[in-house]
Amino acid sequence: MTYQGSTKEEKLNIIDLPRLRDAVKRDTEAGAFGYVDGGSSDEQVLRDNEQAFRHYQLIPRMLQDIAAPDLSTTLFDIPLTMPVIAAPIAAHGLMHQDGEQVTVKGVGAAGSIFSLSTYGNSRIADVASAAPDTPKFFQLYMSRDDDFNQYLLDEAVNNGYKAIILTADATLGGYREADIINNFTFPLPMENLAAFSNAAGSGEGLGIADIYARAKQDLSLRDIKKVKEMAHGLPVIVKGIQDPDDALAAIAAGADGIWVSNHGGRELNGAPASIDTLAAIAKAVNRRVPVIFDSGIRRGEDVAKALALGADVVALGRPMLWGLNQGGAAGVQSVYEHLATELKIVMQLTGAHTVAELQRAKIINAKF
Amino acid sequence: MTYQGSTKEEKLNIIDLPRLRDAVKRDTEAGAFGYVDGGSSDEQVLRDNEQAFRHYQLIPRMLQDIAAPDLSTTLFDIPLTMPVIAAPIAAHGLMHQDGEQVTVKGVGAAGSIFSLSTYGNSRIADVASAAPDTPKFFQLYMSRDDDFNQYLLDEAVNNGYKAIILTADATLGGYREADIINNFTFPLPMENLAAFSNAAGSGEGLGIADIYARAKQDLSLRDIKKVKEMAHGLPVIVKGIQDPDDALAAIAAGADGIWVSNHGGRELNGAPASIDTLAAIAKAVNRRVPVIFDSGIRRGEDVAKALALGADVVALGRPMLWGLNQGGAAGVQSVYEHLATELKIVMQLTGAHTVAELQRAKIINAKF
Amino acid sequence: MTYQGSTKEEKLNIIDLPRLRDAVKRDTEAGAFGYVDGGSSDEQVLRDNEQAFRHYQLIPRMLQDIAAPDLSTTLFDIPLTMPVIAAPIAAHGLMHQDGEQVTVKGVGAAGSIFSLSTYGNSRIADVASAAPDTPKFFQLYMSRDDDFNQYLLDEAVNNGYKAIILTADATLGGYREADIINNFTFPLPMENLAAFSNAAGSGEGLGIADIYARAKQDLSLRDIKKVKEMAHGLPVIVKGIQDPDDALAAIAAGADGIWVSNHGGRELNGAPASIDTLAAIAKAVNRRVPVIFDSGIRRGEDVAKALALGADVVALGRPMLWGLNQGGAAGVQSVYEHLATELKIVMQLTGAHTVAELQRAKIINAKF
Amino acid sequence: MTYQGSTKEEKLNIIDLPRLRDAVKRDTEAGAFGYVDGGSSDEQVLRDNEQAFRHYQLIPRMLQDIAAPDLSTTLFDIPLTMPVIAAPIAAHGLMHQDGEQVTVKGVGAAGSIFSLSTYGNSRIADVASAAPDTPKFFQLYMSRDDDFNQYLLDEAVNNGYKAIILTADATLGGYREADIINNFTFPLPMENLAAFSNAAGSGEGLGIADIYARAKQDLSLRDIKKVKEMAHGLPVIVKGIQDPDDALAAIAAGADGIWVSNHGGRELNGAPASIDTLAAIAKAVNRRVPVIFDSGIRRGEDVAKALALGADVVALGRPMLWGLNQGGAAGVQSVYEHLATELKIVMQLTGAHTVAELQRAKIINAKF
Repeated sequence: MTYQGSTKEEKLNIIDLPRLRDAVKRDTEAGAFGYVDGGSSDEQVLRDNEQAFRHYQLIPRMLQDIAAPDLSTTLFDIPLTMPVIAAPIAAHGLMHQDGEQVTVKGVGAAGSIFSLSTYGNSRIADVASAAPDTPKFFQLYMSRDDDFNQYLLDEAVNNGYKAIILTADATLGGYREADIINNFTFPLPMENLAAFSNAAGSGEGLGIADIYARAKQDLSLRDIKKVKEMAHGLPVIVKGIQDPDDALAAIAAGADGIWVSNHGGRELNGAPASIDTLAAIAKAVNRRVPVIFDSGIRRGEDVAKALALGADVVALGRPMLWGLNQGGAAGVQSVYEHLATELKIVMQLTGAHTVAELQRAKIINAKF
Repeated sequence: MTYQGSTKEEKLNIIDLPRLRDAVKRDTEAGAFGYVDGGSSDEQVLRDNEQAFRHYQLIPRMLQDIAAPDLSTTLFDIPLTMPVIAAPIAAHGLMHQDGEQVTVKGVGAAGSIFSLSTYGNSRIADVASAAPDTPKFFQLYMSRDDDFNQYLLDEAVNNGYKAIILTADATLGGYREADIINNFTFPLPMENLAAFSNAAGSGEGLGIADIYARAKQDLSLRDIKKVKEMAHGLPVIVKGIQDPDDALAAIAAGADGIWVSNHGGRELNGAPASIDTLAAIAKAVNRRVPVIFDSGIRRGEDVAKALALGADVVALGRPMLWGLNQGGAAGVQSVYEHLATELKIVMQLTGAHTVAELQRAKIINAKF
Repeated sequence: MTYQGSTKEEKLNIIDLPRLRDAVKRDTEAGAFGYVDGGSSDEQVLRDNEQAFRHYQLIPRMLQDIAAPDLSTTLFDIPLTMPVIAAPIAAHGLMHQDGEQVTVKGVGAAGSIFSLSTYGNSRIADVASAAPDTPKFFQLYMSRDDDFNQYLLDEAVNNGYKAIILTADATLGGYREADIINNFTFPLPMENLAAFSNAAGSGEGLGIADIYARAKQDLSLRDIKKVKEMAHGLPVIVKGIQDPDDALAAIAAGADGIWVSNHGGRELNGAPASIDTLAAIAKAVNRRVPVIFDSGIRRGEDVAKALALGADVVALGRPMLWGLNQGGAAGVQSVYEHLATELKIVMQLTGAHTVAELQRAKIINAKF
Repeated sequence: MTYQGSTKEEKLNIIDLPRLRDAVKRDTEAGAFGYVDGGSSDEQVLRDNEQAFRHYQLIPRMLQDIAAPDLSTTLFDIPLTMPVIAAPIAAHGLMHQDGEQVTVKGVGAAGSIFSLSTYGNSRIADVASAAPDTPKFFQLYMSRDDDFNQYLLDEAVNNGYKAIILTADATLGGYREADIINNFTFPLPMENLAAFSNAAGSGEGLGIADIYARAKQDLSLRDIKKVKEMAHGLPVIVKGIQDPDDALAAIAAGADGIWVSNHGGRELNGAPASIDTLAAIAKAVNRRVPVIFDSGIRRGEDVAKALALGADVVALGRPMLWGLNQGGAAGVQSVYEHLATELKIVMQLTGAHTVAELQRAKIINAKF
């Protein structure tokens, strides 16, 4: 039987993002939901990614003369309506029949940046055609095959993508038990793989371990420069940084951006919550390059906390797919708008007129 | 259908205040209960407001020669039978048919101070008439319309209210999911709005966001002096302070009292429990002006802890409404008396002859 | 209907003391069980008294050449088979038909010291007659009526009691909700009250608040010397100390022993777990007088932890009554023997040949 | 009825080790399962042994140029495919009909070291014959009877065992409630006891307390040298160390290895989790002798954390028996292979090319 993704297209009435997840769980085939939702091993980091935000407390500020907070900001000179961009995620087709080509429209309508994964279900060019005006980044799982890498980066450059996200924290897959239990294999082709070579296959019918087997495992600092050259000078953001020393080394090796992430709890379990690693990394980076944060953002408060701890923007992963599943492009836009509603309240009540002021908001770690 | 508030009027046999809430929940329409009871976002701060008291431990003291603790104190030279006053809360009519005009009687009978909210269901003058001898404060949600502000403050002054509480932490409403889920709108008019202008409406049939839309969002330190002048020199207490710097700035700008509160967990979520902010603020204030504390008081122990951490008096919010709902004025009085029973035991066992001694009681923060 | 206490008399096969409580709960009338078992207010301290032991960790020690640990010790030169004595508890008649006259036999058989409460159901003289060889302390709730105090102390002296325990932490009763909910009144006479004056009554049919109303509320440091004189020079142990300053003041005022206790969580709620107050007090006392500890002992590990934190002996309260209820004197003895079994293992594995060595065992507070 | 152990022999498809335990629980007689699974007293340490690993967080490292992590290492110059050896456990016959003679084969197939307990169900010689090529250690519960000790050590030496594990933390048994509740006695003979003397008995039909009654309780530092001499110079590893001072004393007294363990939570309850004691001990040992760690290893992350905290190898106890029960020798091998799968991912993602690098991985204790 062919996999049936959602075909919905409608604005959503969102109470909060966790409740939106419940609807997706209800409507989606267990293996597909498990692949998107699950984490590695006993999922401690997956849970901690969300829970750790609770240890951080924003201090309410009074009488700060704010008529209306301004949520806009920029990333690599790209204007954003709010400090939230799309995280790269594989296989949007699991969530909606037209996959990334729908998501990209919603992200654009929300005034944000879309990130296309190497393992998306849509071709680089098709995503660009679907939403020419949406600013786009391309995420690279570096392959053992440099011809394939070059093919991908050429496509990204030629189709107007504005930066390359080099994923550094997934040189192999985490131990994801949900996928093992569900015996999950991808029911849909990964079109960028298919487009390069039918011989190597499209990934359809394969498990995640098979997909990762093609990745370059011995990724090194030298690859940052290499990717930059192969991408004709596009900025390269290194994604998956969890340690200040790695951030410094990546910048020294040419990184144009640092993406703090633990891959949504899908790679190393027994590691810190992503938000717990942010402050030290941001301090080390010291605003030399932009810091992007993901893993665990579910509320406007979470966005605000990440910014107050040093991020320039945050990236939204699973919640964006929840909107995609429940409402297509309009659903994705609804997710952004909901988050803007929450964030605006938080900015007002913490006394932040602007995103820059939010980054200087008082925040405490109440765990210790 | 017209909203049916409670019409009860009787003394209550209270075991403890949390159990009293259960009775109110049972007897009250879901939307009305949700409005009074709920907090913002995922209600972490709402829960923490109560739970955080558990981290503070009062040290029992022995052989202190106490025949009977004296619970009396004063606030702005107003005598109080115990260090507890009424917090301003909107729409008492949700809890009892005659709303604030009943509550004020119970508060007076208990020897305390009543606080009337701008968004009460009773007029400033009618509350004064209902209980002429009860000392009263008026709480101002500053409006965008200065004529309305002046009308309210004139009414307060002319009817013998003794201080103005300027709410600073609610320039817009928190993200209150219970109200969204219940699709809550106020079923009863806010008579002070109605009295000023029928054109602008009484608030009846509106949601909380609509009400807040009329509030002055860009509240600033300058408004403290402005309110004081408009109130003909009545003391102005700034409510919603959660940060020592804000307390100092407010005092420098003319505040006559500092009200430490996070609005009962209804405004900024992802913030500290209110009690966790008290000690640093009280230390900064250093007894130059009175410090009033609210958010989370449910037990005599909680009153004692707030005083030992630096408050001069505490304010009672939801528990007062629980008494109102279950017993009218007598029910409100019962709530105060119950709290006095508990507090008296705590004072005896911590070795405090007086409220001043209770403020010097040994207390530790056992969280860290 | 006359209250029916247990009439059991048999050795018990105890797995652990918490399970023994379950049997008592099953077999005992709710009001009586609630009176013995309950704590004050929301019972946070009651729970913490047991839970706080978990924060303390004894360090296992190896190769210490221990053929068999020696559990014996002394208190005021009275030999004890183990560092555990009986805590004074009111109304043993609730647990067993013959009350304290049975308990005292079991305690003696276990080689321990019995403590009789002022509010026991048996007369001072009758308890002495029941077990002439058991060493006994008398616990005084000091009355407003000095004639009654003198009567009690004369009886204690004349019947060979070896020390007076002056309870300092219960000048009034804690707010015990279980008793309020159960509408509990004592179903049996307190014979020492009855013996002094039938006019004042025996306490039968009264609640705990009525009983406490007769107590001297304004207890002071001067009362230590006064009791000592009235008791013809018997050692006076001050019970209920939770603060190092109070311990030092009591010693300076003549106390011959310091009893660290929070009354089993029945007095001030919102206070530290008793075990959390022990180390600082023991350090302040610095072995000038014996330190006795109670509140929360349920396991051999707990005994060991209290000793390692500075106690000389611990006192057993509720668990002793559980044994009384389930097995009379033999049941009480079984409780002691069970605790000895557990303690012996702990001593062996912590490398303690003797009680004195156990007091020097390595222990850490893993909470912080 | 004769006890029926498992007779399974097959490779296992393991999702994770905790789920494997569930299968064993389902298939095994309650008393036998309780004996293997249970801990002492209220089992706090048993639970903490697993839970405490969660406080430690490995820091993911990026771009470290790792083509494939190398899991191999050595212990006493014995090559190991991974840094995991078998912990000595009594009575494998409870889990599988052919007991240790099966386990030893699986351990050998996995490229690890087997440890035979004094209280195994198979003779020293028979275990050696069953798997001549598997490297083997012999674990000694030192007896009060030195003839028996000498018999055991001679057998170990003569059959090619490579080291003696001297258990120091079990001079008597912990208070194991599961065994008491199940009224557990060993249903099978301990063949090394039987072989030495039928008079003293084989242990069959006895409880664990009876077995421990034969052990030398007054074990001392002098016994290290004594065992070494009796074992003709084989290395002696002292097992059960939980304190740095004890580690130093053991090394000074001749120990050739330090085995950090709290006996899987079966001896002193109210003690630290074993992993919480490791870092300080490893620091004290300072690589003078190998440090082996056990108690609580259930995941590849746990192995990695123990190594990062200072262990040279870890030992696997209950999980090995779970594999034995469900799949015989092949099942044991499957357990090792599963752990290798998990550990390999962890090494890759923490940037460790080798076990030596893993021992230098960044790890933080997030509890404090």
